[in-house]
Amino acid sequence: MNYLDYINSNKERYLDELKQFLSIPSVSTDPKHKHDVRACAEFVEKKLTEAGLENVKVYETGGHPLVYGDWLYAGDDKPTVLIYGHYDVQPVDPLELWNAPPFSPTIKGDKIFARGASDDKGQVFIHVKSIESYLKTKGNLPINVKIIVEGEEEIGSDHLDSFIESNKSLLGCDFVLVSDTAMYQPGLPAICYGLRGLVYMEVNVTGPNRDLHSGAFGGAVDNPANALAHIISRLKDLNGEILIPGFYDDVKELTDDEREEFRKLPFNEEKFKDDLGVEDVFGEKGYTTLERKSARPTLDVNGIWGGFQGEGAKTVLPSKAGAKISMRLVPDQDPDKIQNLFTDYIKSIAPKSVKVEISGTHNAKPAITPIDSDEINAAKVALKRSFGVEPVFIREGGSIPVVNTFQELLNAPTILIGFGLNDENIHSPNEHFDLNNFYKGIESISFYFEELGKLNYSNK
Amino acid sequence: MNYLDYINSNKERYLDELKQFLSIPSVSTDPKHKHDVRACAEFVEKKLTEAGLENVKVYETGGHPLVYGDWLYAGDDKPTVLIYGHYDVQPVDPLELWNAPPFSPTIKGDKIFARGASDDKGQVFIHVKSIESYLKTKGNLPINVKIIVEGEEEIGSDHLDSFIESNKSLLGCDFVLVSDTAMYQPGLPAICYGLRGLVYMEVNVTGPNRDLHSGAFGGAVDNPANALAHIISRLKDLNGEILIPGFYDDVKELTDDEREEFRKLPFNEEKFKDDLGVEDVFGEKGYTTLERKSARPTLDVNGIWGGFQGEGAKTVLPSKAGAKISMRLVPDQDPDKIQNLFTDYIKSIAPKSVKVEISGTHNAKPAITPIDSDEINAAKVALKRSFGVEPVFIREGGSIPVVNTFQELLNAPTILIGFGLNDENIHSPNEHFDLNNFYKGIESISFYFEELGKLNYSNK
Repeated sequence: MNYLDYINSNKERYLDELKQFLSIPSVSTDPKHKHDVRACAEFVEKKLTEAGLENVKVYETGGHPLVYGDWLYAGDDKPTVLIYGHYDVQPVDPLELWNAPPFSPTIKGDKIFARGASDDKGQVFIHVKSIESYLKTKGNLPINVKIIVEGEEEIGSDHLDSFIESNKSLLGCDFVLVSDTAMYQPGLPAICYGLRGLVYMEVNVTGPNRDLHSGAFGGAVDNPANALAHIISRLKDLNGEILIPGFYDDVKELTDDEREEFRKLPFNEEKFKDDLGVEDVFGEKGYTTLERKSARPTLDVNGIWGGFQGEGAKTVLPSKAGAKISMRLVPDQDPDKIQNLFTDYIKSIAPKSVKVEISGTHNAKPAITPIDSDEINAAKVALKRSFGVEPVFIREGGSIPVVNTFQELLNAPTILIGFGLNDENIHSPNEHFDLNNFYKGIESISFYFEELGKLNYSNK
Repeated sequence: MNYLDYINSNKERYLDELKQFLSIPSVSTDPKHKHDVRACAEFVEKKLTEAGLENVKVYETGGHPLVYGDWLYAGDDKPTVLIYGHYDVQPVDPLELWNAPPFSPTIKGDKIFARGASDDKGQVFIHVKSIESYLKTKGNLPINVKIIVEGEEEIGSDHLDSFIESNKSLLGCDFVLVSDTAMYQPGLPAICYGLRGLVYMEVNVTGPNRDLHSGAFGGAVDNPANALAHIISRLKDLNGEILIPGFYDDVKELTDDEREEFRKLPFNEEKFKDDLGVEDVFGEKGYTTLERKSARPTLDVNGIWGGFQGEGAKTVLPSKAGAKISMRLVPDQDPDKIQNLFTDYIKSIAPKSVKVEISGTHNAKPAITPIDSDEINAAKVALKRSFGVEPVFIREGGSIPVVNTFQELLNAPTILIGFGLNDENIHSPNEHFDLNNFYKGIESISFYFEELGKLNYSNK
């Protein structure tokens, strides 16, 4: 039996196992789910073992555990690929907007709905099942494969760096392969060669030492929520331009070639607006929507709070207000430098009548990979074989901090081939994953192993 | 026997009866206490009757009952005063913070501790016992007196308006007298002659139709939380000046006399700042703290929300953000007009890239009574006679909705003479009332009746 037949005849079981995977509420940010996160790691361990991998083990990290497995018998002249993914998921709030419980995977048409379906459990499972299909039918893999699946991606991969640092030879590889991104559009696979970086901050403003009656005190004491609004309004102007001095200093402008690649991508702005329900797009003058959302830096309030949020009226002058604010960075912006610019600027504009505390939550560097290598060409062949069309080259607006880590600690570039779709509500209610892409993904990765097996690494 | 001797010789009994009053858990918001609330109304009915009032009756309102009584034999040339108070009390939670059970009145030193001691049972009882002292010693009152004591003040006086509307001739009066506020400081009585009005609004901003990944979309779609911050920052500047066009048009500037009265008030700004834990006061240039917090209009964010408010980091570009924003008004600002100005202005400045909805929650008109009237002068004389010092004139920064109701439905101004103190923990654990002020209050109100009786209303 070849691996394609095996994939076909095991479709139903693969789906059942994916459902089990998605049923585990591995919300890494919530201490309440600590045991679920561990149970999820153990589930991954079991699946890696069943797939035929060796040295499978749940590793302690100081935070949530990560799972490792490998198969290293292809020989020194074959590439060694480190597959990376994460089994942890985003929180589910607001829960009331989900049409079905987020941890009771529900199939509607070709889609499976559950938190983590697309980000990233469904995509991790593609790799596990490709490996299984290959090993169960051929008894070997054409390349050397290592896989790590971590449990802290959604909270900043806090313990991953030190794990990699302490396990450089265990994880050593020629390149890293990640499926945690999206296809360009349905039917059109994409190879992602650039990622934005991230600086995620929290700003807390304190006014009086307790909530006050706004009638008795209003007008004589500064209000931290008003002050916070003033601060935020001075971070980005109404054209989307960031006002922090020095913010754009290290931004590498897009080349003419890159802008030409962007222009070639199919993109319907009317459909984009319709889909989001907005009257108009928004952003920096002089850039297209695609450039704005992936190749230009930006700043967003991710959350804001303060005072009375209930029904009706409470005449309170709140003691505290706060906001989570993040910036997306592009090459060659440095997160540490941007974090300092942000902090210094806020300190300089903060009204003296309130106390402002600024703290960093997590940072990631922007990343970019050359697009003309043998490994990228092999991916092009594999994706075309499975999807029937040439993949496009894209840059992602999001951050995958581990890409930096792999580059720095393992000296390994990362290739990002995602099988999600952009409208699959990752990080939102009703996250889902297209099952066609799940199965095509398993095919694609198997083809990719096969293509990579044709490369001769004896001279590398 | 004159009424002062009567008050003196009945001190102990008055205190015993006050304790009985305070022992009834008339928590109006709690359905569990419905029968206690009614029992309390019946207690008030009994005390009004014992005091010598006539037409005493517990009136049904659709909610908790209210109690009415009157004595109307002073003649048409004498003022008719409507005394207003409430017998319902705030909830007692957190119960564990009380040093003694809230409905077992406990005396420590000169203070009586119980829920409702200061707000407002103790102050209501001052009026009842003044009336009793007068009627039991002189057999008459020098003025016509009506009293209503309601049971829903702490839950918004929901049924009071319709009761007054249906009983305009029963309640008709020259002015209303209320003791539900505080003295300026221990030993220094105050006559409150002005209240700020209120316009309480809610602003809801919608961007995309769902929460988006801030990496995948940030920079290309407007963020409702950023947009809301821009809107709020344009409502009030960093000096506390409100930027809504026309907002100040109808503001009656403080007169030199009024400002002089403010300057005479003892006020320690350092202590004020220390108490609130703020580095500095804040507000409109050219006005003192006391003026800012009671005699100048202002605007405050009472609550703000949007996106992710939990622990850690969620890289969301929120679909919605909102704020509760209220404005305190001064004479002659009209709440309806201000509501329209607020709404129109926000519509005019709102970025077109988001949807903004603006709604009103509730409004109250500002109120002011001339401070040079015969009735106010009589109060000055009475308070000085009892406390030995000239009372101060103050304006309250908050709103007392019934004051508007009396003005609108009965065309009657309200004089507010409070015998509470600002640190008596109303609405908090360990509420208490100073018994010196209880007895001085009974004296003061008796003196006030006497002074009012000297006025000739035959030309009014």
